[in-house]
Amino acid sequence: MKFLTWLFLTLSVLSMATANEGMWLFNDPPLDAIEKEYGVRLTPELLEHLQKSSVRFSNGGSGSFISPDGLVMTNHHVAFSAVNKLSTPEHPYTEKGFFANTPEQEAKCPDLELVQLEKIVDVTDRIRAAEESVDEGARPAARRQEIARIESEAMKSTGLFCEVMSFYRGGLYHLYEYRRFNDVRLVFAPEENVGYFGGETDNFEYPRYNLDLSFFRVYVDGQPYRPDHWLRWSAAGARENELVLVSGHPGRTERLDTTAHLEFLRDSYFPFFLDSTRRQELTLGLYRQRGEKQAQSASADFFRIQNTRKAKSGILLGLQTPWMIDLQKETERLQRAAWRQRYPGQKDPWTVIEQALTVWRGHLVDYAMLEEDWAFQSSLYKAAKQIVRLSAEQTKPDAERFPEYRSTTQESTRRMLLTPGPIDLEREKVQLADSFGFCLERLAPARPEIRSWLGGDSPKGWAARLVDGTRLADFSFRKELLDGGWEKVQASDDPMIRFALTVDPVARKLRAEHDSGVVEPIQKAYTDLALFRFQTHPHTCYPDATFTLRLSYGKVAGLPGIPAMTTIAGAYAHAEEHRRADVFSLSDKWFDHRSEVDETTPLNFISTNDIIGGNSGSPVVNVKGEVVGLIFDGNVDSLSLDFLYSEKSARAVSVHSSGIREILTKIYGVDLIP
Amino acid sequence: MKFLTWLFLTLSVLSMATANEGMWLFNDPPLDAIEKEYGVRLTPELLEHLQKSSVRFSNGGSGSFISPDGLVMTNHHVAFSAVNKLSTPEHPYTEKGFFANTPEQEAKCPDLELVQLEKIVDVTDRIRAAEESVDEGARPAARRQEIARIESEAMKSTGLFCEVMSFYRGGLYHLYEYRRFNDVRLVFAPEENVGYFGGETDNFEYPRYNLDLSFFRVYVDGQPYRPDHWLRWSAAGARENELVLVSGHPGRTERLDTTAHLEFLRDSYFPFFLDSTRRQELTLGLYRQRGEKQAQSASADFFRIQNTRKAKSGILLGLQTPWMIDLQKETERLQRAAWRQRYPGQKDPWTVIEQALTVWRGHLVDYAMLEEDWAFQSSLYKAAKQIVRLSAEQTKPDAERFPEYRSTTQESTRRMLLTPGPIDLEREKVQLADSFGFCLERLAPARPEIRSWLGGDSPKGWAARLVDGTRLADFSFRKELLDGGWEKVQASDDPMIRFALTVDPVARKLRAEHDSGVVEPIQKAYTDLALFRFQTHPHTCYPDATFTLRLSYGKVAGLPGIPAMTTIAGAYAHAEEHRRADVFSLSDKWFDHRSEVDETTPLNFISTNDIIGGNSGSPVVNVKGEVVGLIFDGNVDSLSLDFLYSEKSARAVSVHSSGIREILTKIYGVDLIP
Repeated sequence: MKFLTWLFLTLSVLSMATANEGMWLFNDPPLDAIEKEYGVRLTPELLEHLQKSSVRFSNGGSGSFISPDGLVMTNHHVAFSAVNKLSTPEHPYTEKGFFANTPEQEAKCPDLELVQLEKIVDVTDRIRAAEESVDEGARPAARRQEIARIESEAMKSTGLFCEVMSFYRGGLYHLYEYRRFNDVRLVFAPEENVGYFGGETDNFEYPRYNLDLSFFRVYVDGQPYRPDHWLRWSAAGARENELVLVSGHPGRTERLDTTAHLEFLRDSYFPFFLDSTRRQELTLGLYRQRGEKQAQSASADFFRIQNTRKAKSGILLGLQTPWMIDLQKETERLQRAAWRQRYPGQKDPWTVIEQALTVWRGHLVDYAMLEEDWAFQSSLYKAAKQIVRLSAEQTKPDAERFPEYRSTTQESTRRMLLTPGPIDLEREKVQLADSFGFCLERLAPARPEIRSWLGGDSPKGWAARLVDGTRLADFSFRKELLDGGWEKVQASDDPMIRFALTVDPVARKLRAEHDSGVVEPIQKAYTDLALFRFQTHPHTCYPDATFTLRLSYGKVAGLPGIPAMTTIAGAYAHAEEHRRADVFSLSDKWFDHRSEVDETTPLNFISTNDIIGGNSGSPVVNVKGEVVGLIFDGNVDSLSLDFLYSEKSARAVSVHSSGIREILTKIYGVDLIP
Repeated sequence: MKFLTWLFLTLSVLSMATANEGMWLFNDPPLDAIEKEYGVRLTPELLEHLQKSSVRFSNGGSGSFISPDGLVMTNHHVAFSAVNKLSTPEHPYTEKGFFANTPEQEAKCPDLELVQLEKIVDVTDRIRAAEESVDEGARPAARRQEIARIESEAMKSTGLFCEVMSFYRGGLYHLYEYRRFNDVRLVFAPEENVGYFGGETDNFEYPRYNLDLSFFRVYVDGQPYRPDHWLRWSAAGARENELVLVSGHPGRTERLDTTAHLEFLRDSYFPFFLDSTRRQELTLGLYRQRGEKQAQSASADFFRIQNTRKAKSGILLGLQTPWMIDLQKETERLQRAAWRQRYPGQKDPWTVIEQALTVWRGHLVDYAMLEEDWAFQSSLYKAAKQIVRLSAEQTKPDAERFPEYRSTTQESTRRMLLTPGPIDLEREKVQLADSFGFCLERLAPARPEIRSWLGGDSPKGWAARLVDGTRLADFSFRKELLDGGWEKVQASDDPMIRFALTVDPVARKLRAEHDSGVVEPIQKAYTDLALFRFQTHPHTCYPDATFTLRLSYGKVAGLPGIPAMTTIAGAYAHAEEHRRADVFSLSDKWFDHRSEVDETTPLNFISTNDIIGGNSGSPVVNVKGEVVGLIFDGNVDSLSLDFLYSEKSARAVSVHSSGIREILTKIYGVDLIP
């Protein structure tokens, strides 16, 4: 009887992926589900080809090789910050677009890095064994040590960049081996008002008409890279109701979140996060208006923040819809009963999570401000902090360091710190003053000592003193400090370094509290939850997104009253409806060459693929592995995909491959696609 | 010995007004101080002339009669909302400007009201007597009753609009008798990019180049009004170092605030206020971008909110400067010692204020959200609330009502409720959803019942349901409800009225807590503080601003490196430096007529006058009472004038009278100034 009840409960309440749902691991693809839904069985060859043609951008975003000579396709908005860094007042590439007519004109991006996934190895057993060889209290350290050892061994043996990733909140551990590319050159970017056509107003909306597209080329040893795998272009492009696959790097989902967790996000985390985001957006927005130089410096971050704000506001509005959480509460009540039946007398993971969230709520703002640097919106402060941390952590054994300063990762950190890039000192001052003002508002009433950090100045005066006084804008000074090590750093009289040294002990204390009181118990509890789900439904569920490569499947499909595709004609009409004002201007090129274009060519389309931030720039391919589109957005209803998939109204938004080819050849006179 | 110490303390620590400081009452002008500083003794005739030439705008702002046929001068930004209400897609007056060539073209503003101050009567003794005739607990009610009686008697005997105002936080009570004008017609408004030249970027900055000017005409019985007093134009205009007087309506200062109060503002009030303001700004900003219709609907409010945000951020940054409050702490310590010496054994007013602020802190967000309607950004909700309150309050005796629903004020409220004006239903939905979302974030964790107000919907769905369902956009429906009275209102099935009825008891409870726990004790304590100051320095101090008419004196004076005046040439240069983009475009008229203009004519100037929000549109006059300028802004350093005057860096910013005349005649071909 007990057994029967258990079976009944698990089958009815433990949600499995529904049709088209899922961000699947490439080493555990949903072949059966796809075959059942679409009557097609994907081959291992196709999946390998798709995997190895895909790349990840270091600044967040996805892309793919689309030519034998290393051409990489991604979104304009993924490329934006790189384009912006190459722009000058004489060559305003962000505004006017960029095209390299010859290989010599291809412009090297100073700090852009791409990785391409070669291989996935399951290392769960090794980590479990390491954990089980020690007492419960020592397990986190043992796990960290084992991860460091696996990464280090793999890097030595393969020469690749290797990273252990955990899935199902620690239920599985996979080693990801990446080929890494540091020489990435810009080949093509359209004008900002073409790539970001409709701006903030159209963002997350559909119908859309965007050529959110850019091309880079990867170089190795000064020569165009010749990848083993690259995606061919489809002659027909995406067709309605067609099965389409997306290969990309969704950043982060929380599909396992308990209702207590969702309520914490709704009532504590998102409101605070959004207050901070709105503030940054307005500060940067005002700064952009000071003049052209300032606009150029701040635009990329401004759009990123605006995008984040709109996205998170959409999620919060979803969470504030009572039925959404109420529905999950009912499912959770049943799941919890099932769990208790199976593990009687044990504290259930839902309770563990609730308790950890209480701890988090207690230091949420302090932790975000002081350890996650929300209080210090300044690249110079961030450099100071990283120099302080890197130097201090290097005095410790690898396994005892913070993960971001281990031997496998510190090289990236060091390179980032030493790669010269423009620093806008005027902007540093404005943002640092404003963010520390925010910190004073939120923290100083309970932590009056923070006020003393100002040294008597106003936040504005204090920020100016630090930014004007520090030598960290000079990269040789950074190198000197890093080479000098912890002793040298501690003795530095640089005001920004001294300030970072003041903050560091307070921030470390918060980090310790957060790691032990929140991260560890929550990770453990979600592991239990995930394993519970896993055990009952092997291979029919997928882990949360972790910015690793994932496969999503779905079909090209409209919504009630909204056709799946738009056309180039729609773009012209949309611009004209808005009198071509500002972000609706498209570009003169579009109007100059209008008569040459076949305006009936599809431009954008929507599909039921389960995607999220980080998937930007992902290729959309048909069952032959040919490019039929390029992911660039989701509609408003897709925002809640962070927590919940529903094919009812959520849609991924892509640029259509035929529109890309038509516009490139007819409007831009560019012949890049093989 | 004790007496000597006391004398020493009061003389040294109780701050009197410094040179040029003060927003002085017209019935207690600082004649001696002005004479001492400038060697000029102002005559009673000049002051009466200035007083009676000044007007106050019902939407906040100041102005003056400047012609014998009722022409009123004010700022473009004071007129903006009226201009916007008159604008249509065919006649975009906000964008293109407005000028009436003939009296028939002068456009009546549906809900604009001006008042002009005829007389001030000191009624402090009557109110004190009424207070002292009852027990301590009954005094607030007795005071309110006596105020209502005085106002009602005065209105009957004079036929004027009469209002009892308290000064020194209840230390003095004056009866203000106003002539009221309801027929106000727009005569001239420049293009938005001229009046608001430089937009948000230039706001609170100096040097400036704005023609922030508009003209209205007052009509009585369908004819242009012929005022007894109006200000003549100065031939020379403002000159450097000249003594200038400003007559206007500063809205609100808190110059008596204790340091506990300033810390409350710094740590609790302003942070919350600004979070709400930033949110509204972004919501409206996004809404404006939806299209031209939406931009027209939301622009006036958007600019107002943007302005408020920048102003309050500036104040907060000032309060976050440790030395500012630290300095006052020292003064306060000595004052407090002096007070205790004088009133030994009594709880001092600083302590009373501290305790009341603790109460306020406890319900700050609840009160603002639910009683001050921050949660319900919707004119339809506000109408519903006012209909509910007005109807309910009318069932009570006058003296027991909320002040805003007494017989002396309810007529205005009723008229406002019944004056048709455009309601943008799309915008109502967007703002109501967002503001109630904000309320859910801040209040629902502790008051989960608020979530039930959604009736299961998302904030967006809920707002749409209320706005689509209510009939309150129909003004005849409002009248029907108001005429029907409390019974009828209670029985209404209109969803917005029903919602206001749901909120009302919760809001009333907060109002009662706030009035008794915060407003009353704070008012009493500041009365004690103000009287203490008053007694020791009669006639050398001035009360906080209360949107009543005040006199400010100062001189035209630059700042280190910044000359006092700008010229018309500077405006052209400023536009060209910004490539005439957006808010820097000025207007084609300016460039078409450029050759006719004497570009050396002064355009804007700064002076040391002690002014604040509400002074916008105030005339600046010379010692002969002639117009030499028009107040329109203060510099960034003037933002802290809410709490502290300093002539060191704070400056009032005005349009120069000569620039006005030059531009009106040469660029606009308008001959309005007699």
